[in-house]
Amino acid sequence: MYRTHTCGELRQAQIGQEITLAGWVHKIRDKGFVLWVDLRDRYGITQLVFDEERTPADVLEKAKKLGREFVLQAKGTIIQRTSRNDQIPTGDIELLVSEFTILNPSLLPPFTIEDETDGGDELRMKYRYLDIRRDPVKDNLIFRHKVTMEVRKYLSDQGFIEVETPYLIKSTPEGARDFVVPSRMNEGQFYALPQSPQTFKQLLMVGGMDKYFQIVKCFRDEDLRADRQPEFTQIDCEMAFVEQDDILETFEGLTRHVLHAIHGVDTGAFPRMTYDEAMQRYGSDKPDIRFGMEFGELNALAQHGDFNVFNQAELVVGIAVPGGASWSRKEIDAWVDWVKRPQVGAKGLVYVKCNEDGTYKSSVDKFYDTEDLAKWAKTLGAQKGDLLLIISGDKAASRNQLNVLRMELANQLGLRKTDEFAPLWVTDFPLLEWDEDSESYHAMHHPFTSPKPDQLSLLDSDPGAVRANAYDLVLNGNEIGGGSIRIHDKEVQQLMFKHLGFTEEEAKAQFGFLMDAFQYGAPPHGGIAFGLDRFVAILGGQETIRDFIAFPKNNSGRDVMIDAPAHIDKDQLKELGLKIDLPSS
Amino acid sequence: MYRTHTCGELRQAQIGQEITLAGWVHKIRDKGFVLWVDLRDRYGITQLVFDEERTPADVLEKAKKLGREFVLQAKGTIIQRTSRNDQIPTGDIELLVSEFTILNPSLLPPFTIEDETDGGDELRMKYRYLDIRRDPVKDNLIFRHKVTMEVRKYLSDQGFIEVETPYLIKSTPEGARDFVVPSRMNEGQFYALPQSPQTFKQLLMVGGMDKYFQIVKCFRDEDLRADRQPEFTQIDCEMAFVEQDDILETFEGLTRHVLHAIHGVDTGAFPRMTYDEAMQRYGSDKPDIRFGMEFGELNALAQHGDFNVFNQAELVVGIAVPGGASWSRKEIDAWVDWVKRPQVGAKGLVYVKCNEDGTYKSSVDKFYDTEDLAKWAKTLGAQKGDLLLIISGDKAASRNQLNVLRMELANQLGLRKTDEFAPLWVTDFPLLEWDEDSESYHAMHHPFTSPKPDQLSLLDSDPGAVRANAYDLVLNGNEIGGGSIRIHDKEVQQLMFKHLGFTEEEAKAQFGFLMDAFQYGAPPHGGIAFGLDRFVAILGGQETIRDFIAFPKNNSGRDVMIDAPAHIDKDQLKELGLKIDLPSS
Repeated sequence: MYRTHTCGELRQAQIGQEITLAGWVHKIRDKGFVLWVDLRDRYGITQLVFDEERTPADVLEKAKKLGREFVLQAKGTIIQRTSRNDQIPTGDIELLVSEFTILNPSLLPPFTIEDETDGGDELRMKYRYLDIRRDPVKDNLIFRHKVTMEVRKYLSDQGFIEVETPYLIKSTPEGARDFVVPSRMNEGQFYALPQSPQTFKQLLMVGGMDKYFQIVKCFRDEDLRADRQPEFTQIDCEMAFVEQDDILETFEGLTRHVLHAIHGVDTGAFPRMTYDEAMQRYGSDKPDIRFGMEFGELNALAQHGDFNVFNQAELVVGIAVPGGASWSRKEIDAWVDWVKRPQVGAKGLVYVKCNEDGTYKSSVDKFYDTEDLAKWAKTLGAQKGDLLLIISGDKAASRNQLNVLRMELANQLGLRKTDEFAPLWVTDFPLLEWDEDSESYHAMHHPFTSPKPDQLSLLDSDPGAVRANAYDLVLNGNEIGGGSIRIHDKEVQQLMFKHLGFTEEEAKAQFGFLMDAFQYGAPPHGGIAFGLDRFVAILGGQETIRDFIAFPKNNSGRDVMIDAPAHIDKDQLKELGLKIDLPSS
Repeated sequence: MYRTHTCGELRQAQIGQEITLAGWVHKIRDKGFVLWVDLRDRYGITQLVFDEERTPADVLEKAKKLGREFVLQAKGTIIQRTSRNDQIPTGDIELLVSEFTILNPSLLPPFTIEDETDGGDELRMKYRYLDIRRDPVKDNLIFRHKVTMEVRKYLSDQGFIEVETPYLIKSTPEGARDFVVPSRMNEGQFYALPQSPQTFKQLLMVGGMDKYFQIVKCFRDEDLRADRQPEFTQIDCEMAFVEQDDILETFEGLTRHVLHAIHGVDTGAFPRMTYDEAMQRYGSDKPDIRFGMEFGELNALAQHGDFNVFNQAELVVGIAVPGGASWSRKEIDAWVDWVKRPQVGAKGLVYVKCNEDGTYKSSVDKFYDTEDLAKWAKTLGAQKGDLLLIISGDKAASRNQLNVLRMELANQLGLRKTDEFAPLWVTDFPLLEWDEDSESYHAMHHPFTSPKPDQLSLLDSDPGAVRANAYDLVLNGNEIGGGSIRIHDKEVQQLMFKHLGFTEEEAKAQFGFLMDAFQYGAPPHGGIAFGLDRFVAILGGQETIRDFIAFPKNNSGRDVMIDAPAHIDKDQLKELGLKIDLPSS
């Protein structure tokens, strides 16, 4: 071992001891006759001191040539520090160095290794190994480890067995695009990387494994939106002989355990809300309920006058912004412009100031009297001093626009507190959703999700109305988990495939093994998958996942550090029986 | 929940209680007036009873139509069993069924769901979900889970952080073949699946993570020997600021912890042996030291006479087989034939019986007298009643042949006890090994392994003699882990690449990021990787890994259950910019 202690553990108790440390030169202060070096490792920082009086001359000389990020092994005696540093746990002591070895020198790093670095995103990604030396990134990775250990501990204690499912599986055209892997031993054929272990975990239920989980990488070859990764990690879970409530209780237990173990937070029972209710009250299937500003529908109160914008709208819907009545006209206009941007897409925004003196001032004073506005305010739960903001139009679009507005307002008003945790179950999702592009219904969750049993007959007459035994776990406005009770009956599964536009042959070719399995005693079962990257980020009080992943890819799916993907040898291609065939080549 | 209890937990204490169970029909015994059903789930078996006196007639009627592997939910009362079954923990009681529901019927399974099944390997793989219902497979998967939980617990308690490294990385022609993954967003370019997270874990050390581990899938597109899988799992570990001894101690600690936690076995300090010593004493770099039969070299004692086979041999080497003197001539001849088979490749086998009366009888009595044979027996540590078996020829080949013979003898003599655990460190492996095909040196471990620092100068003069800071952990004759101290210096790494035949450009193109990283303060570091599949199998007292993997692939790399790999859509290929280009097409 190159050290007797780490740079984070020395205290007054060690004063007088001979100690060896190893780590990186974090900072150097050279006063000529005395030189201080902050030596850093994963565990902390310890100050090394060299001075003319006590340090051998050659050692001091050599120390003066050190540079940032040099790797040192330093021996010496722990002494009391003359001026205590309250900022660090080792601030009482320093190491008076008697000798040291440079284990490796360092070029000047391309950005500073500080909490607030001067490195831009691309530079930090290219030198990710240096970025990881920074506390914010390092601490996130350690935090992730702690969360996954707690998840595993809890699930294992509950009788769940972690089973590894294969990564080299079969491509299915359904849903997002698969990454495929050419097989050399089976020429012209391909494996696919799993988008999730869905069918395998169901087969484990058929196999009697009863309670399964796995923390597992999944892959999607999608165009990457901001904060999406082509490879991501799921906490994937499945249980047999359960109904929806059993799953919700079990994974509410998991989430509660993690919140308690990591943050000491005790949440009560998680609220539950149907999809329809969530859309109505928040315009979102993943509402952030840490704060109010619930939606109120105003059709009945606002469609009686001459204001045709409202009269012609399918929905008139608003929120009350706390304290917003004091905003200037300019501030309000800025919000009107903000919702009109194409990213939001609202046609306009009606406001009503609920003044402290009980009067109202609105952008529709021409059309509505005080009594109208007072009723609106009451419906939206406004207090004196609040500002009503109202959007109208097509129902789905208006809800979505008002949701985007509500979330941005909350961000700017500081209502989304990162140390507050508000979990929520959203249940009864639609089974199918209409896809405009393909003009057909797609499975909203996935094709294995069970319709509500009493609604099977609706599949033909009104497919969009069928609700599923599907649920999401929402935390602070983010979907962190989603799942469903699965179909375990071959006929129902065939019916589903039919409604999703599969021919019988296609269904058999792709999922024949699953339907076969259903014929050999498949138990009722259901499960859930958590998006670990996001779960960890939100637990860590952040909303971007990238710094909770050791080596993330950029928005083009590239690892800029190792420069992948890359071209491969002609020989390699030939062995695989493949040829590059680009339109441009 | 479909049940109040599992099928494994009911005892006399529950007699009289109303209970609901759910599970699979394991066995049916129909005596006409009474019918017993063994109901099975992951946790055990509970006997259900239906009889004319106590069961409603329609329920009994329905029960008579049950078949094997039907899925049931059964309600009733726990009663004392008239004839106790000592074989199962629930043998005191049975469930007198008042009503039951068939949750799913089952076709007759293609093989019996019993410990000793009538299903062949291919059939079991095709219906793996049924195979997993069998206790031996199910128990192995649960056992694997327990082992990995203990591994994670131990390493985490020791301050190791589990960090996920990427699966979509860059292809490197070195070593075994990579699986590649075409990138749609970067046309004509490919990711590769990692053969191990080697470079990433080293970068984590450069990043100051200090102690890293990961239980992680790795991929090799190799022609599959028996009991190899294209995807396999490693316990991958790395530490900074360590020397070889620190690694050996840490992972000896891990292995000891697992042996104790899983089997209650306490092993002392693990013996250590250099590679050279292991080859000399056992003819193998992964000797099974649960039993004796150590090699003895007889050149000095056997090359003085007229027996030219020995005189011309580079090595004359033998073992003493306990009790073998009593073997018949026929039995001994069978062994002679066995070693002459091409799979072993020996030219012959000399035997010497050390009779109980102190006399000797050998196949070379013409050439050697009793005094000679007595000296041989002494060198090989033979007791009266033992049989000496001696092989001669080329040194490397003879050792290998005698090793194969020793292992097979031990198998047949029952010396390889599955409940005995004999770990061993083998150290000081050669840095390079000569590859006959390419007529060049390859890295024996991998190109990042550090040569013994004092032997760097030998790299030019005698490359094959250079020893590395590389070590294997051997358990019961199997390599379960291997690792090394790594190079952390850019110049030494460049030197290694040069000796492995890389041009400077090739080294830079493939590993430039690593050599860059070495310039920014890389600490000394080293690590190890355990082959989890094999580790678990050996801990479980077995040597084949397939039944410790939930969904293994066959020797052609196929998953016969889901039928993968498979052909993919033309559209999919087109999107990837690829064309199938087979010699035959």
